[in-house]
Amino acid sequence: MKQYQHPTADQITLTGVLHALSDPVRLNYVQCLAAVACEQACGAIATPVAKSTMSHHIRVLREAGVIQVRPAGTQSLISLRWAELNGKFPGLLDAVLNAVDSTDPVASK
Amino acid sequence: MKQYQHPTADQITLTGVLHALSDPVRLNYVQCLAAVACEQACGAIATPVAKSTMSHHIRVLREAGVIQVRPAGTQSLISLRWAELNGKFPGLLDAVLNAVDSTDPVASK
Repeated sequence: MKQYQHPTADQITLTGVLHALSDPVRLNYVQCLAAVACEQACGAIATPVAKSTMSHHIRVLREAGVIQVRPAGTQSLISLRWAELNGKFPGLLDAVLNAVDSTDPVASK
Repeated sequence: MKQYQHPTADQITLTGVLHALSDPVRLNYVQCLAAVACEQACGAIATPVAKSTMSHHIRVLREAGVIQVRPAGTQSLISLRWAELNGKFPGLLDAVLNAVDSTDPVASK
């Protein structure tokens, strides 16, 4: 079964997280994950891009430490690393998610 | 005298701001601007990169709406657009600046 590499909490950097969140598609995805507040199968959240493009975005989010990807049978389950991010950068994810608004059409869908 | 283009508050996007802040040199620069809390001459804040590279970083920050650049005689004065950013994305800049820590060596200098 495919295993995914994740940074430890110590390895997560602020600039890496900001970069991961600086793309409208990725920001929208993180917003959806935060809204459902539980693990989601890869593909369960509708995105406006091709599957291969979304795989890239998910890899960026995973490598930045924003999400956890867990293989489960033939699919992958994805969740926000909310507790670790909030522990390391208190209030950051909340502030970003609160800031998602109509200035970013894709992210605000 | 050289004039600089700035986005209006309406044109500032969350993803643009996050991208501008996702570079350690730019994040460090914004942190220094926030610490002095007043206009700074371009070059007054020590940076670890060449002048031309810093010009690029300052342009990225200006075009994202993070900083204001004002020509004054032979130099340019730079300030954070704190009020506009805070009005548009409440708490975001505070959360980012609070999150600057030892995981980003350049940004935490």
